[in-house]
Amino acid sequence: MKLNIALLAGDGIGPEVIDQAVKVSNAIAKKYNHEISWTPALTGAAAIDAVGEPYPDETHAVCEAADAVLFGAIGHPRFDNDPSAKVRPEQGLLKMRQKLGLFANVRPTFTFPSLIDKSPLKRERIEGTDLIILRELTGGVYFGERGRKDNGNTAFDTMTYTRAEIQRLAKKGFEMAMTRSKRLCCVDKANVLESSRLWRETVQAMEKDYPEVTVSYEFVDAVAMRLVQWPKGYDVIITENLFGDILTDEASVISGSMGLMPSASVGSKVRLYEPIHGSYPQAAGKDIANPLATVLSAAMMFEDFDLKEEAQAIRDVVNKSLAEGFVTEDLAEGGKAYKTSEVGDWLAKNI
Amino acid sequence: MKLNIALLAGDGIGPEVIDQAVKVSNAIAKKYNHEISWTPALTGAAAIDAVGEPYPDETHAVCEAADAVLFGAIGHPRFDNDPSAKVRPEQGLLKMRQKLGLFANVRPTFTFPSLIDKSPLKRERIEGTDLIILRELTGGVYFGERGRKDNGNTAFDTMTYTRAEIQRLAKKGFEMAMTRSKRLCCVDKANVLESSRLWRETVQAMEKDYPEVTVSYEFVDAVAMRLVQWPKGYDVIITENLFGDILTDEASVISGSMGLMPSASVGSKVRLYEPIHGSYPQAAGKDIANPLATVLSAAMMFEDFDLKEEAQAIRDVVNKSLAEGFVTEDLAEGGKAYKTSEVGDWLAKNI
Ligand SMILES: CC(C)[C@H](C(=O)O)[C@@H](O)C(=O)O
Ligand SMILES: CC(C)[C@H](C(=O)O)[C@@H](O)C(=O)O
Repeated sequence: MKLNIALLAGDGIGPEVIDQAVKVSNAIAKKYNHEISWTPALTGAAAIDAVGEPYPDETHAVCEAADAVLFGAIGHPRFDNDPSAKVRPEQGLLKMRQKLGLFANVRPTFTFPSLIDKSPLKRERIEGTDLIILRELTGGVYFGERGRKDNGNTAFDTMTYTRAEIQRLAKKGFEMAMTRSKRLCCVDKANVLESSRLWRETVQAMEKDYPEVTVSYEFVDAVAMRLVQWPKGYDVIITENLFGDILTDEASVISGSMGLMPSASVGSKVRLYEPIHGSYPQAAGKDIANPLATVLSAAMMFEDFDLKEEAQAIRDVVNKSLAEGFVTEDLAEGGKAYKTSEVGDWLAKNI
Repeated sequence: MKLNIALLAGDGIGPEVIDQAVKVSNAIAKKYNHEISWTPALTGAAAIDAVGEPYPDETHAVCEAADAVLFGAIGHPRFDNDPSAKVRPEQGLLKMRQKLGLFANVRPTFTFPSLIDKSPLKRERIEGTDLIILRELTGGVYFGERGRKDNGNTAFDTMTYTRAEIQRLAKKGFEMAMTRSKRLCCVDKANVLESSRLWRETVQAMEKDYPEVTVSYEFVDAVAMRLVQWPKGYDVIITENLFGDILTDEASVISGSMGLMPSASVGSKVRLYEPIHGSYPQAAGKDIANPLATVLSAAMMFEDFDLKEEAQAIRDVVNKSLAEGFVTEDLAEGGKAYKTSEVGDWLAKNI
């Protein structure tokens, strides 16, 4: 297969973890006889510095022309601590999601046999966890009108959803549930929010089209609790953008490390793959960041190209590195810690 | 001391758990020579059924005339599954918070020595946790404009904050941090939301008035992760209404049970005390709900009347019941489970 992948390294540890995913993907291409051409493009603070814009048109053109996008991370503390900054890296991420039509973010949560005891949660609570959070990614309070009034003394953000936006996300959720254990949980705050009531009523109306799927409706606060109390209670979760942002990060605790959790953003022709962790600026440039979430995001990419064996080969080598302790410092726990680049080399060699 | 307490039992298990808090409070009054008069009033679905309104004017009058309010829970599944219901129990709760000026919800999270191994989290992660989440309670998306457009096919909610609203909440946070380990964490989503940027800039501007307090700013998604990963990293957390709703429920996992966590809502003359759990309709009327969160809410009430010994006596008897296993089924784990009313009787007797 010939694959043309847009490579958006972004900020902080982005470039370092992306490098390892490229090494591993190239090793896969070599072994299974594929041809991957990588087209790098600017995004985030890096793009602001270079061209004054966090998601430049040239970058968008590169993404549109590609078969898929592999993305690192975005964000820089310089902007976080300056609430008045006019241009921010995150705007690039949001613009990219919107312009590429990536309305669904697929975030699986699972455990790794060799890491299970590193989770802050007890083994019996999490062993066998296998859930997917489907987060709506181009709507809600991320994209509604926002601003200031009253001489800057009042600020507002608008959380807004249309029935069609909810339907297309929920449809993916129902379909995904059908390929799994047929349980779908719609997470909202319908006891307070009008947009959540629209979510609930829209999903309720779709139930009849999927008679085999058992649907439950839960409030986001309750799910924030149950997700860590008993994650095995969930199969497929669908939820709006902001709730999904919070719950997926929370769920990453289950696996023991955010540095391990991959994601795919889908919705139109070009799909995007990214680790769920952020740009982790404190670690940037130190060659210490855990590259596995990005490597596993590449596995999701191969899977979506229907290259299942290739995807499994990546997962297998990741499991091998975990089992043999060939890991970065966040997972080393007393054992030897390897550099980001060393882990990438090791993975590529062991493909 | 003479105390006049408004008693709002509310829905579901509300009346059952409230009964036990009354028993315990009366035992305290007897032992320490206080006089408590309880004035019951309607709220929630119970009030809708009786008078068509979840927070009737008469109830408000009772609250305003009281020295404090003891509150059970609100909510009924009949409304949750009907997104088009015009009147809902939760409106009563929100109206009550607003009309009583309860702009700050104080939710402590701590562990109980005898329960620590019941937490889904590992002992070494949580032992010694002692944090307080100060949730803004009368602003944000709970109170902004909401509605439908486009023939009901678009729904919106507005998250809005004024500088003054943030200042009064943050002031409480700084003051609370000063009486504790002087660490304050402001939780927001300033990389996306304009209202969060107003939070961040407002709190930043207040830092100079509290030079001894170390302030950190963290994104809500990261906190959703760190809160269960390493709760001891936090002392006082301040945050807006919706984030606080989610994070406080999540934090309740640390203690091993939502049935244990009390809260106080403050801001004006009359304070309100309530368990953080909901109306738990599945358990209603069965005499099985855990009354300890409500009993501990009564302890917070005594503490705020500067009756510290009385508050401690309640905490001591609660710890005794936990240590001796005189608990409801949610905590029994194989041991004998006692009824809600039996636990209340036992606590009152052992005061
Ligand atoms: C960086 C930030 C804007 C982003 C989000 O909130 O969507 C990130 O947290 C994520 O989850 O991808
Ligand atoms: C019942 C609901 C409206 C309420 C809230 O979200 O504030 C509850 O979850 C709480 O935390 O007190």
